[in-house]
Amino acid sequence: MTQKIALIQMKVVDDKKKNLETARNHINEAVKNGAKVIILPEMFNTPYDNKYFPEYAEEYPGETAEWLKKLSKKHEVTIVGGSIPEKDGYKIYNTSYVFSDRGELIAKHRKIHLFDISVEGKIFFKESDVLTAGDSVTLFESHGIKFGLIICYDIRFPELARKLVLEGAEAIIVPAAFNMTTGPAHWHLTARARALDNQVYTLLCSQSRNENASYLAYGHSLAANPWGEIIDELQTEEGILYIDIDLEFIKKVREELPLLKHRKPQLYI
Amino acid sequence: MTQKIALIQMKVVDDKKKNLETARNHINEAVKNGAKVIILPEMFNTPYDNKYFPEYAEEYPGETAEWLKKLSKKHEVTIVGGSIPEKDGYKIYNTSYVFSDRGELIAKHRKIHLFDISVEGKIFFKESDVLTAGDSVTLFESHGIKFGLIICYDIRFPELARKLVLEGAEAIIVPAAFNMTTGPAHWHLTARARALDNQVYTLLCSQSRNENASYLAYGHSLAANPWGEIIDELQTEEGILYIDIDLEFIKKVREELPLLKHRKPQLYI
Repeated sequence: MTQKIALIQMKVVDDKKKNLETARNHINEAVKNGAKVIILPEMFNTPYDNKYFPEYAEEYPGETAEWLKKLSKKHEVTIVGGSIPEKDGYKIYNTSYVFSDRGELIAKHRKIHLFDISVEGKIFFKESDVLTAGDSVTLFESHGIKFGLIICYDIRFPELARKLVLEGAEAIIVPAAFNMTTGPAHWHLTARARALDNQVYTLLCSQSRNENASYLAYGHSLAANPWGEIIDELQTEEGILYIDIDLEFIKKVREELPLLKHRKPQLYI
Repeated sequence: MTQKIALIQMKVVDDKKKNLETARNHINEAVKNGAKVIILPEMFNTPYDNKYFPEYAEEYPGETAEWLKKLSKKHEVTIVGGSIPEKDGYKIYNTSYVFSDRGELIAKHRKIHLFDISVEGKIFFKESDVLTAGDSVTLFESHGIKFGLIICYDIRFPELARKLVLEGAEAIIVPAAFNMTTGPAHWHLTARARALDNQVYTLLCSQSRNENASYLAYGHSLAANPWGEIIDELQTEEGILYIDIDLEFIKKVREELPLLKHRKPQLYI
């Protein structure tokens, strides 16, 4: 059994209405092409920039969440709403809402690891100036597949991916926005490593490259399989990547190379 | 401060005396070239084949360990004795002995994760038919660097590398012998991922390819740096790879991209 997943690599601009319209057009196309689970990128309704997050943030259920709910119900597909800034009291989170084929909220992930980085002469970003970190791990089931859900920098931490897999994840969804320094250096490597070590699919969904944005997204939305191979990837332009998740292949790899069985947890403490 | 490390990619044959002689020649050359820590490959005194392990196994301190001890003392270098089959009562371990510049045994690692793999039509090996697994993690210090030491398949488990690093490892030494299936697929990927995620050096030392052996080693001894890059690597032939470990670079990477500081251990349980 395979299931068709769509990763939407969309262009994000400083205009929420326009971003939702862009996302809707891509979602309509993905539905037409038979996708059962549709994934949007990190911060798909706002430019990825601290100065915009408070302005674009929404208390649940806000405009964007309601819009996601309506679309998923209308098309009878699962939509992983990349992420948006979520306002909760005085705090803002980087949050992903997932709506089922019936338009039910079935998962909500708040980015756990905030992106605070300062590479000399290359990239500086400090999410924690504006955002608050989430504190729980997120799984959901859709179309017979158990998904783990993390956001961007969360993928840097092998413990988190491992936890998701030990709790049953067969594919890990990662709305993300790597940059022009860490992207070329680490994007493929990390996607492949988490997939290989955990014998799962990883699905990394980025914004497209917008040369006018303050933060240049790397793009290259991609999927890696449980053998650690890149199945397919986009480049920097807008587009949709279709990936078939094959649970039989996971089973085969785990039988041939039984990494998960060979773990010695008592020695890792 | 940098320290020169030598990885010896040697040819192993069905003749212990010959293997020690080969290793000695390479060690002499590495010493002449200023290496301070010299690393031999996994099972460097015996063909990598279950049928040879009992015959080549030695109780400590056996011929090979005594030989390592003498050489390290004579040359005033640290030698990581790849690994050899170690007999202990009725059990055989895949064991790495480390001798200091003074010829003292400063570490001993017994491979924790035994290599039991069966990839359809490609590779079958079951170490656990003959070998017993070790049950502790191994670190040692030499020339101002804290090293973690694991053997081959041990590198498959991100938890183990993480544990070594949380205990202070700045470089992880991996005597290894990947094969012609897992080598091309996973050797570079895993070396780079452990280095990047943990912001350490990884040093993978393989036997050279011996086309007459029952088990074809992948070769490609290499080192990855804390930014996840391959610094340098050999191909399939015999040779010595010299690597400079730079503790300042580790510090720089950990400051710019503070992965270890950003961990949330309470959420990984």
